[in-house]
Amino acid sequence: MRLLRELIEDTKEAVGAECAVAVRIAVDELLGDGGIECGGEAREVIGLLAEMPDLWDVNVSDWAHDSMTSRFAAEGYQEDFVRFVKSVTTKPVVGVGRFTSPDAMVSQIRRGVLDFIGAARPSIADPFLPNKVAAGDLDDIRECIGCNVCVSGDFTSTPIRCTQNPTMGEEWRRGWHPEAIPPRTGDDAFLVVGAGPSGLECARLLGRRGYTVHVAEAAPLLGGRVTLESSLPGLAAWARVRDYRLNQINKMQNVQIYRGSSVTVAQILEFGARRVVLATGARWRRDGVGRANTRAIAGFDGTAVFTPEDIMAGRLPPAPVIVFDDDHYYLGAVLAEKLRAAGLAVTLVTPAARVSAWTVNTLEQFAIQKRLLDLGIDILMNRNIVDFDGGSVTAACVFTGRRQALATASVVTVTARAPNEQLAEALAAAAGDVQAAGIISVNSIGDCLAPGTIAAAVYAGHRYAREFDFPQSDLPGFRRELPG
Amino acid sequence: MRLLRELIEDTKEAVGAECAVAVRIAVDELLGDGGIECGGEAREVIGLLAEMPDLWDVNVSDWAHDSMTSRFAAEGYQEDFVRFVKSVTTKPVVGVGRFTSPDAMVSQIRRGVLDFIGAARPSIADPFLPNKVAAGDLDDIRECIGCNVCVSGDFTSTPIRCTQNPTMGEEWRRGWHPEAIPPRTGDDAFLVVGAGPSGLECARLLGRRGYTVHVAEAAPLLGGRVTLESSLPGLAAWARVRDYRLNQINKMQNVQIYRGSSVTVAQILEFGARRVVLATGARWRRDGVGRANTRAIAGFDGTAVFTPEDIMAGRLPPAPVIVFDDDHYYLGAVLAEKLRAAGLAVTLVTPAARVSAWTVNTLEQFAIQKRLLDLGIDILMNRNIVDFDGGSVTAACVFTGRRQALATASVVTVTARAPNEQLAEALAAAAGDVQAAGIISVNSIGDCLAPGTIAAAVYAGHRYAREFDFPQSDLPGFRRELPG
Repeated sequence: MRLLRELIEDTKEAVGAECAVAVRIAVDELLGDGGIECGGEAREVIGLLAEMPDLWDVNVSDWAHDSMTSRFAAEGYQEDFVRFVKSVTTKPVVGVGRFTSPDAMVSQIRRGVLDFIGAARPSIADPFLPNKVAAGDLDDIRECIGCNVCVSGDFTSTPIRCTQNPTMGEEWRRGWHPEAIPPRTGDDAFLVVGAGPSGLECARLLGRRGYTVHVAEAAPLLGGRVTLESSLPGLAAWARVRDYRLNQINKMQNVQIYRGSSVTVAQILEFGARRVVLATGARWRRDGVGRANTRAIAGFDGTAVFTPEDIMAGRLPPAPVIVFDDDHYYLGAVLAEKLRAAGLAVTLVTPAARVSAWTVNTLEQFAIQKRLLDLGIDILMNRNIVDFDGGSVTAACVFTGRRQALATASVVTVTARAPNEQLAEALAAAAGDVQAAGIISVNSIGDCLAPGTIAAAVYAGHRYAREFDFPQSDLPGFRRELPG
Repeated sequence: MRLLRELIEDTKEAVGAECAVAVRIAVDELLGDGGIECGGEAREVIGLLAEMPDLWDVNVSDWAHDSMTSRFAAEGYQEDFVRFVKSVTTKPVVGVGRFTSPDAMVSQIRRGVLDFIGAARPSIADPFLPNKVAAGDLDDIRECIGCNVCVSGDFTSTPIRCTQNPTMGEEWRRGWHPEAIPPRTGDDAFLVVGAGPSGLECARLLGRRGYTVHVAEAAPLLGGRVTLESSLPGLAAWARVRDYRLNQINKMQNVQIYRGSSVTVAQILEFGARRVVLATGARWRRDGVGRANTRAIAGFDGTAVFTPEDIMAGRLPPAPVIVFDDDHYYLGAVLAEKLRAAGLAVTLVTPAARVSAWTVNTLEQFAIQKRLLDLGIDILMNRNIVDFDGGSVTAACVFTGRRQALATASVVTVTARAPNEQLAEALAAAAGDVQAAGIISVNSIGDCLAPGTIAAAVYAGHRYAREFDFPQSDLPGFRRELPG
């Protein structure tokens, strides 16, 4: 109390009337009575110092609690923790809580929960969010999906990325403004094959630039993997990747989307588009090859082995089921959750030391492993799968190789994805015909070139649409900070 | 084969007679028949391309195998893998294997195993290793201890550090040359209290600078924690931290060491040294406070709770014993290994998801967990300890809080260290007397200021001795690369 009081006093004295002094304080550490609680010490502290700062900036700690993903917390989820603050001070109060929709923001202001809305991740997804609210262009807001890929760069020492906003982190390096897009440099028409995240972003941006774009999607539904995955537990907000782009494209006269339209080489040759972009995505491997296994797992060619696409298509494997996660991002655990919710006995087996090990980088790992344990899913870590005979798998300790048999009726294998590159290969084999048809470029983007995150797929689509007509060079293509 | 052949051909063609072309190749992936083996494909490949490169640079992969620590591999441990190479080529061959002693290097050359000695980590520990060999100053070589702290910076995105060579990574930033040391700037005499890694490095460097230095060590043995820890399984080479410094100090007339000499405030006041440096180290906490517990663990004040110092002093706890590792570096697992070797039934309990979790940064984690499992040590991860009643502990899942009782006769607690700061506090309380005695500075360095790695303690001793007489400034004190 005294330290904080003196810090505020000294700071106010130092800045004088030049600027306001804000105090950020976590009002709940979510440690129960082992830490500060919003109903206890936090109320006393803020009550006693109530009128000293010019602005109270309140949230919860630690970072994983403060920046929860959409999988684990709803928009505005800090309301119950911070709502008391305005009752003990007359000073304005700002808070956060992954606010993405103007309605949720306005609701907290009107109901007197907050005076200011803090929105870091939503501003990463759309830096022009306040301007669009002010202009009434609510439809044009690119809403954060709450995946925390933005956070992962902090842990992996890589540039920040955003699933929704591919220009994030490239404003200076590549000169990509999130709203100002260079106009088209020619009259070429485009055929984009595939309406997943990469194809849709590519088509949206080519359309914004003024090009004529045709998008052919083989499936009856648009959105590719985000449409499939957003039906899984906790991932509904991910459909915004599709919805934002479709909404933008629907306003354009120069972009046409054809659903249920798988295309052949012959059709592409006949179509008449000068430029062809392949965004055909990837599929999950069925053979068990992934990080721990460079060769197919014996028995994974059996009928009791299911891929994520099988489960997302609604197939229910016979129980008990083993989910083998050698992917280590979110999907293995999400599928385990879905199958458990369907009443199945589920064991998650992984060669990693943690469930969804990579999600330490999205601040979700603890919450994921806790949720699976709370749901009664058995977890066997540090184990590879050696073989499966339809009735049991042989699991081997990754450290010692010691083996054990695990009885199971089925296996869901989540190990790695293989690119859908058949069309690219067929077009390459028909290079002469392609040239004769007047097609001047064929490019693969996103998962069909290199399976990766949704953010990487959107980025690839954006980059192609933005830079395909740039002069080619051997230089890195972006500015670097070089020591003087 | 063809790819490698064409790469060599094209490279040789490109460089012409301008320079030699070396080929680095891992002759064994240590994957058994799942990868390249030195007795199989590697021999065929190098045999067929034998005379094409000007130099063969051979090792094993992956990095954890290529850069094994002294805990897991002896000097020259790659000999069995690479010795065949010279039998299939007339070109010179270079290899690695953490060579630290000239004898081991010369032996491999004389026996025809290698033509050149590769030594990265030994050159980090002593960049003047070749010069010292050439000059015959073998005693002055600062031998790598094989701890791989150097590697950890790569994983933690922090500047490289070396336990033996504190100038590593500071050559440009701070202008620290590993051999060229600035001479003394005055006549002050020094009293260094404590002859652990920090005190010894401080005394060595002050001595090199020409100062008169007295070192008072309370214990009968010198070296502090490295003397204790180097008696543990696999850590013998760590004694080099002490031995290099004692060997250097023994050559100096101006540095005196007093063993078995604990000092009081009164003795320091009487001693007559103008500058006092406190390097009194740290001790392991007995109360269980560490990363997972901010409060003492109930029952850890009982007689069946042992600290690492108890075990290193030769006390044997009653079995079965639980080693509670909430430190996550090497010591918990090393102590478990020692107790198991003494025939005790041992269970290692840790709130982390891995045994010695931090050692992923030293490339040792896999080897450590495998060794413990191979030794028959039970491992219970993701568990905190709630209490201990002398006969069993209550362990709680870190995710769900679910509790279980574990019968045990004793607990060895490895959680955190507390600084030995009593002397510093007593001197601060006697500030008037200190000034009256003519003492112009009292500084704490190393573990007694902030418990850390051995590398950090050595660094602190070096930095004090090198910079105490630098002009003080608010600037960072080192050069930075700033974008132009």
